[in-house]
Amino acid sequence: MEITLQSPLDMHLHLRDGDMMKLVAPLSSDFAGAVVMPNLVPPVTTVAALEAYRGRVLQAMQSCPFTPLMTLFFTPLGEKELEHALSTPGFFGMKLYPAGITTNSEGGISNLAEAERTLKLMEEMGIPLLVHGESHGFVLDRETEFLNTYRQLAMRYPKLRISMEHITTAAAVSLLDEFENLCATVTLQHLLITLDDVAGGLLQPHLFCKPIAKRPEDRDALLQAALDGHPRLMFGSDSAPHPRSKKEACGCAAGVFTAPVALPVLASLFARHGALDKLQAFVSDNARALYGIRATDRTITLRDEPSSLPVPSCYRSYGCEVVPMYAGATLPWSIVR
Amino acid sequence: MEITLQSPLDMHLHLRDGDMMKLVAPLSSDFAGAVVMPNLVPPVTTVAALEAYRGRVLQAMQSCPFTPLMTLFFTPLGEKELEHALSTPGFFGMKLYPAGITTNSEGGISNLAEAERTLKLMEEMGIPLLVHGESHGFVLDRETEFLNTYRQLAMRYPKLRISMEHITTAAAVSLLDEFENLCATVTLQHLLITLDDVAGGLLQPHLFCKPIAKRPEDRDALLQAALDGHPRLMFGSDSAPHPRSKKEACGCAAGVFTAPVALPVLASLFARHGALDKLQAFVSDNARALYGIRATDRTITLRDEPSSLPVPSCYRSYGCEVVPMYAGATLPWSIVR
Repeated sequence: MEITLQSPLDMHLHLRDGDMMKLVAPLSSDFAGAVVMPNLVPPVTTVAALEAYRGRVLQAMQSCPFTPLMTLFFTPLGEKELEHALSTPGFFGMKLYPAGITTNSEGGISNLAEAERTLKLMEEMGIPLLVHGESHGFVLDRETEFLNTYRQLAMRYPKLRISMEHITTAAAVSLLDEFENLCATVTLQHLLITLDDVAGGLLQPHLFCKPIAKRPEDRDALLQAALDGHPRLMFGSDSAPHPRSKKEACGCAAGVFTAPVALPVLASLFARHGALDKLQAFVSDNARALYGIRATDRTITLRDEPSSLPVPSCYRSYGCEVVPMYAGATLPWSIVR
Repeated sequence: MEITLQSPLDMHLHLRDGDMMKLVAPLSSDFAGAVVMPNLVPPVTTVAALEAYRGRVLQAMQSCPFTPLMTLFFTPLGEKELEHALSTPGFFGMKLYPAGITTNSEGGISNLAEAERTLKLMEEMGIPLLVHGESHGFVLDRETEFLNTYRQLAMRYPKLRISMEHITTAAAVSLLDEFENLCATVTLQHLLITLDDVAGGLLQPHLFCKPIAKRPEDRDALLQAALDGHPRLMFGSDSAPHPRSKKEACGCAAGVFTAPVALPVLASLFARHGALDKLQAFVSDNARALYGIRATDRTITLRDEPSSLPVPSCYRSYGCEVVPMYAGATLPWSIVR
């Protein structure tokens, strides 16, 4: 079997900065583009910072034909600032983090009321809102506790394009069908694993991420929606590299590094479930339709043949070392080069 | 405030063997005795192995007046073997593990029918049954899925003393009140932490154990039962040392090492809740009444004064290194030496 994907997109990607970005950015180059998260230190809150970061991303991608879709870390902005953003090449949308909810999100929003005016302007101007939707509650309840906030946002701003980023629960999948203006991304790992894979046997720090993987019925609902080609569900890897020394440690940082394996693993997953014909929608068409993203002429062909080499046990350069998901494994599908 | 505990007991302890035992055994010497788990490699399945292990335990305890209450790893034994065990100094009971459920339990029981004759004999002979009660299901459901097995055991062997080891859920606490022949141990960490403490922020491998810490309402039910002095709930630390290199690693082993901090932390916890008068029952009297264990003349006095030194960030000797719970912290209560 073989599939050629047109203009595949990763709708949620952490490229980091500096040496780590130099290491990881080229490992996303099989995608035609990606939505690049703004939670650097300090976060990307200004158009000037966004332009500078985009420049560094393009440089780190070397000569790959890759479109970074840049996001601003949500802070309350006025009309002029939003217009400036809109007219900036590569600007894609605003990413809203509840304060302190994940890696480098300390400067996030603690009260949605302070965001109201900006959200209204975004709705009028057609700027997408991407949301890390977790409460500060018990780790397993954080996403479901946030669903009411999504409901309120969807009702209050009916024309705002609101993306529930990296959803992990069956309840979030159900919510998608309640409001036309809600869409969602889902990661590779949340289609595959549950909390059992993280903490059911030996503890697996490289599978620890936020939101944490949930119950089997949650994973199954996410996978089914993806395999069904749900038109408002998009692939967003949330690939989130951390130095190996911060993963295999006391106080391990949250994030699974999936960028280099995402496309072959998705192909084998969809093929195994007889849904290979829905993969194009999941990794590109849905996002392009929802956001009006233009396709590039990038294609990638995948085949159900194991690659000759296993996934590296780690990637190492520029003084950085990161461990990918499936480190050391031979994947059943490979990219045709 | 000050409390003097008479003959405190740790009703569930992993002392390991060899160099690790030499390191950790003396760190339990503030207890008058402990129920010593048999999941060595290979497990302690014969009386001869139990006697030899007891000898090594006593040697590792150096000259401390400490009573090891030794357990046999449950395998189907006949009347002669059980009688032999009963007449062996230091023999306490049988520990039943479902096969493969935790560290070194591969040789456990996969079908309770094979245990039936032995259990009947144990009931007749008054030999306690200690059970690691988890199914092979989803990590959060394993204990609740096992509760029906406890019910069946309690009904089928009404005179068998059955201990639900290291319970972690509100449902298990409720089950205690259904059957007089059920009792339970609870660890230090399960009175204190939830899954949030393990995986809600950065991942904390030193708080990762099996059964995994559960929801806040589970922790609260366990704590309340302990503070109430529930007569069939006993302290069992399940203190489970692993080499630091196996905890702060990809594939971290399950177990929290609490032995050196358990008594001062329990004292401050019970005092904070105004239940210091129930601590003697929890750490000694309940176990002595349930099992007919004789008190020794060991006492230990604890006072609500921070010790002059923080908990060591790790314990290191004999080529082993283990990290205790509260490493580096100064505890609000200390042992009066």
